[in-house]
Amino acid sequence: MEGVDYLAAERKKAEFDVEEMKIVWAGSRHAFEVSDRISKLVANDPAFRKDERTMLPRKELFKNTLRKATYAWKRINELRLSEEEASKLRFYVDEPSFTDLHWGMFVPAIKGQGTDEQQRKWLPLAYKMQIIGCYAQTELGHGSNVQGLETTATFDPQTDEFVIHSPTLTSSKWWPGGLGKVSTHGLVYARLITDGQEHGIHGFIVQLRSLEDHKPLPGITIGDIGMKFGNGAYNTMDNGVLRFDHVRIPRDQMLMRVSRVTREGKVVESDVPRQLVYGTMVFVRQTIVQDASCALSRAVCIATRYSAVRRQFGSQNGGPETQVIDYKTQQSRLFPLLASAYAFRFVGEWLNWLYMDVMRRLQANEFSTLPEVHACTAGLKSLTTSVTADGIEECRKLCGGHGYLCTSGLPELFAVYVPACTYEGDNIVLQLQVARILMKTVSQLSSGKPPVGTMAYLGRIEPLMQYRCNVQKAKDWMNPNVVLEAFEARAARMSVSCAQKLSKFSNPEEGFAELSADLVEASVAHCQLIVVSKFIEKLQQDIPGKRVKQQLEVLCGIYSLALLHKHQGDFLATSCVTSKQASLANDQLRELYTQVRPNAIALVDAFNYTDHFLGSILGRYDGNVYPKLYEAAWKDPLNESVVPDGYHQYIRPLLKQQLRAAKL
Amino acid sequence: MEGVDYLAAERKKAEFDVEEMKIVWAGSRHAFEVSDRISKLVANDPAFRKDERTMLPRKELFKNTLRKATYAWKRINELRLSEEEASKLRFYVDEPSFTDLHWGMFVPAIKGQGTDEQQRKWLPLAYKMQIIGCYAQTELGHGSNVQGLETTATFDPQTDEFVIHSPTLTSSKWWPGGLGKVSTHGLVYARLITDGQEHGIHGFIVQLRSLEDHKPLPGITIGDIGMKFGNGAYNTMDNGVLRFDHVRIPRDQMLMRVSRVTREGKVVESDVPRQLVYGTMVFVRQTIVQDASCALSRAVCIATRYSAVRRQFGSQNGGPETQVIDYKTQQSRLFPLLASAYAFRFVGEWLNWLYMDVMRRLQANEFSTLPEVHACTAGLKSLTTSVTADGIEECRKLCGGHGYLCTSGLPELFAVYVPACTYEGDNIVLQLQVARILMKTVSQLSSGKPPVGTMAYLGRIEPLMQYRCNVQKAKDWMNPNVVLEAFEARAARMSVSCAQKLSKFSNPEEGFAELSADLVEASVAHCQLIVVSKFIEKLQQDIPGKRVKQQLEVLCGIYSLALLHKHQGDFLATSCVTSKQASLANDQLRELYTQVRPNAIALVDAFNYTDHFLGSILGRYDGNVYPKLYEAAWKDPLNESVVPDGYHQYIRPLLKQQLRAAKL
Repeated sequence: MEGVDYLAAERKKAEFDVEEMKIVWAGSRHAFEVSDRISKLVANDPAFRKDERTMLPRKELFKNTLRKATYAWKRINELRLSEEEASKLRFYVDEPSFTDLHWGMFVPAIKGQGTDEQQRKWLPLAYKMQIIGCYAQTELGHGSNVQGLETTATFDPQTDEFVIHSPTLTSSKWWPGGLGKVSTHGLVYARLITDGQEHGIHGFIVQLRSLEDHKPLPGITIGDIGMKFGNGAYNTMDNGVLRFDHVRIPRDQMLMRVSRVTREGKVVESDVPRQLVYGTMVFVRQTIVQDASCALSRAVCIATRYSAVRRQFGSQNGGPETQVIDYKTQQSRLFPLLASAYAFRFVGEWLNWLYMDVMRRLQANEFSTLPEVHACTAGLKSLTTSVTADGIEECRKLCGGHGYLCTSGLPELFAVYVPACTYEGDNIVLQLQVARILMKTVSQLSSGKPPVGTMAYLGRIEPLMQYRCNVQKAKDWMNPNVVLEAFEARAARMSVSCAQKLSKFSNPEEGFAELSADLVEASVAHCQLIVVSKFIEKLQQDIPGKRVKQQLEVLCGIYSLALLHKHQGDFLATSCVTSKQASLANDQLRELYTQVRPNAIALVDAFNYTDHFLGSILGRYDGNVYPKLYEAAWKDPLNESVVPDGYHQYIRPLLKQQLRAAKL
Repeated sequence: MEGVDYLAAERKKAEFDVEEMKIVWAGSRHAFEVSDRISKLVANDPAFRKDERTMLPRKELFKNTLRKATYAWKRINELRLSEEEASKLRFYVDEPSFTDLHWGMFVPAIKGQGTDEQQRKWLPLAYKMQIIGCYAQTELGHGSNVQGLETTATFDPQTDEFVIHSPTLTSSKWWPGGLGKVSTHGLVYARLITDGQEHGIHGFIVQLRSLEDHKPLPGITIGDIGMKFGNGAYNTMDNGVLRFDHVRIPRDQMLMRVSRVTREGKVVESDVPRQLVYGTMVFVRQTIVQDASCALSRAVCIATRYSAVRRQFGSQNGGPETQVIDYKTQQSRLFPLLASAYAFRFVGEWLNWLYMDVMRRLQANEFSTLPEVHACTAGLKSLTTSVTADGIEECRKLCGGHGYLCTSGLPELFAVYVPACTYEGDNIVLQLQVARILMKTVSQLSSGKPPVGTMAYLGRIEPLMQYRCNVQKAKDWMNPNVVLEAFEARAARMSVSCAQKLSKFSNPEEGFAELSADLVEASVAHCQLIVVSKFIEKLQQDIPGKRVKQQLEVLCGIYSLALLHKHQGDFLATSCVTSKQASLANDQLRELYTQVRPNAIALVDAFNYTDHFLGSILGRYDGNVYPKLYEAAWKDPLNESVVPDGYHQYIRPLLKQQLRAAKL
């Protein structure tokens, strides 16, 4: 039966050009071509197999990751891959490893925070992987609050060195990926102290292990912090713990692009704008939003395909049962996530543009838009990662019992994804930062300073406060302007309402603390508006391909109306829509589910994921689920023997009532 | 520092009698005494250690579970524990194993569905564990739809036997716990065929393995279905796959209490009421609701204690930072879950009463209330397990990064809990069953047949449709009648609205399918009302202990007002409350968070969980989190050597640029 496509009938139903949609999803024909080629290269190389990953004990798992990482590097060099291709290859290998931190954090930090001289010294070593670096910021006692880090870097003018030290147990570096077992160097963040004075948190390049025998250098204690959530998942990564006992490094290993310490121990600020950090931040968060759309789309792809394969109930006269994808309850949970995957893809694309825009402004010393940029990237990171984490688990539940098997791929996808809600800014902390900027923007509305970028709508606060939705029938909700206005009015009114409540507090900080849960809700409303508006903007572009744009319009409708339904309380409480209009939106939503149904399989095919990358029997392209589930079961270590290890010691004495003598 | 209580200051803040609250939580002084004694017995016995569980590879993990299960049985016998005590001991061992299915499904099914003669034959063997049984119902292709099972049991009148057979791959039994490696017998559900005629699904006792050497009997293929979600978690269980190739069993191994097959192959119904199945169902679901409150309270206990230990931001003049439990955002996520744990405990207690009430009615041949009982147990199973699964993950996120470590206990608690959303009825399928009964009840309102039990409020449909909430200030929301009426009106109006929409469809089944997502929402509203009303009823009882009742009133307020806020859309759309009133509810909610804050630690202490049972460094009773996290890290297998296995093969060649020769 090999080669039969059990989903062929589904694929025939599609009303749009899937190949063109693949280009839209990838972002460009070039991006599609690279992804397609590299993903197949990885999928076809047995060295990158990952189907046994969830069964491996930690040490074997980790050793196997080391092998893959080194092999990947070898292939990158053999094939002379470009930087773009190399990064795609690591992406499709799909296994967290020390190289993520080396390339994703260590190298960029040196580039961003190192002087030209420092870059010339360290980057060539890092580029060739003659040193392997990690990013040692968080500590046992401090994550979100970077300013609270306790590790110290005390300048010793006598020797022209910094003394790196962990003064307390809670100052132990804790979590850095790649630190535990692999990195030779760490970018260590510590409180700079010179001449008895504190000068805030700075980064220092510290060699951690001998380049000869890999042993930790004197004064350095390093280890792995232990097992993390899930099978496989992040257990391929050596997140580490690190303590310093007065470790000395030369002065020139402090990253000195922004501030430097002189030979005499004076701290001198350079004229490089500190706002440069915004550029890196937008870049990193843009990556996180792209990752969100990727992770969510993988889960949705698995759940959608399996929902078309799985049949349950509804058999008539002995005929086949109903495909579960035909149930409205399934659709109302699955299709909004499908739409979200597309929505996040497009907002990620826009963030990519924003990054370039920010860099251009920075070079022109134009900093005024940065708070808004900060708010929008922080908010989108928070929104998309939260929705994605929940969405993956929802997709797992949509696969019923079999979603609980590791071979479904969903447990590992969930476990490996959820840290995104915490790293690079805890999602709630980030929404509060957005809220703070929103409140400031609202308070300055009367000052004549018009809000910019994603906050520009607040400049139309008066019409938005007057706004009344004029939807009269369900179809009216298909007008993008109607949707946009409703979302703008809701977000604006929630912000204004928070601002009004805040103004009643004599101490604004107390008010902010007291109302913080409401402020988070206002901030979420603002971020949802951004996603909706960027989806709508995308649809105003020229999008080629037969009925491709129409499909995206349906998805955009689902995305926004499902949100409207879920947050009906906001829309009604702020009188943006009437309950009748909310009910019409819900009617329209059901209609859109019906429209998307025949296209569902093709819409997930458009992600162009290989079966290797998906890593899910339930999500197989050919839909040949049951025989493969059955086959895979026998590979479990427990099935190596028919009678299990432990039978003679434990089961037999139980059955034979011979427990007194049993050694237990 | 051993022995210091870092949470002592928190415990001193408590305004109520914790010891009395422990009795309320346990349900009675007797229940408390048994739980307390048995949980300590388990905690103090090193044979029941579980802190290494998440690090064990599957085979070792499984073998260790076999050891614990056998050892537990030995202790139960040595200590001559009562049935209640034995069951508590298994509960506190806290490791899923074949014994759960043996005692929880196999034995009860024989009791419930076996004739007296069958019970006399099989129960003594099962009670002594001379045979070990599992419950083999679900198949690769069928879970929710039991009537779709494909396994056949064909009566052969020549030999007076049934031939048990798996006609297709999808008919393979799949998932039964204890089946994979341990059970000697299975209660196999199959389509009964006699004389070429189908007679529906029945249960058959089938011996699976030899009692001498544990090998599968001829014609039987058995194995484990492989790794499941999470570290440790359900991987201690041998969920199994089973295929039959024309396996013969004697006729008297069909469970024949309700229907029997005669020597001639005729199917004869007995006069035992088929409704007996409801008794078992209420019993099982009552257990599930109790388990929900237990799992949720464990997660809440961990997150609450850690939130009081963890400090982040807010340091003033170098003083300590703010405990994260003091942030309103933390409170608004944590305290509703704390309140839900209590709410589920009380509704579980009520379900226990309902079970006895149902049994009494069954014995009196009184079946009229059974549909309502079915709806309420199905709905509560669905509601409590969904909230608990999400709640555990929310608690994990509330613990920040460290919640992602296995030593936090939360990843395993989540992974081991989530199947509850799927087993014993998929949660969405169950809500649709509730909705069906709700719609029937609404349609019969005019018939003069008054709705009963938890649907009785629908009998007051006219005042509920007229109802207007008269809340004028935040405090008004503390009146239980005001809350109850608002929840009743909301639930009633949502049901009526669905019924009205349904009536517009010419084909009611089509309407039901089309509107199923809305029907689920109406059903959830109904189930939330049940929980709120049972909490309020509980508070009308006499509850001794200093300020114990007051604390519970605060929690009841938090439970209901947090729901009201979350589902504001429902309340506004049905005009049950105005947006002003909803906003007042939210104000009151914040006030209640402030009231519960000083009592939070004591409220989770009242669960009386040992550190062994909690299995979480973050949730330690003494709050000594950081040193213990640090200590635990070194126990990971990866830390057995300073230089990791794989260094010479993979890391060194990378660093030394010697990849060409490397074997990868």
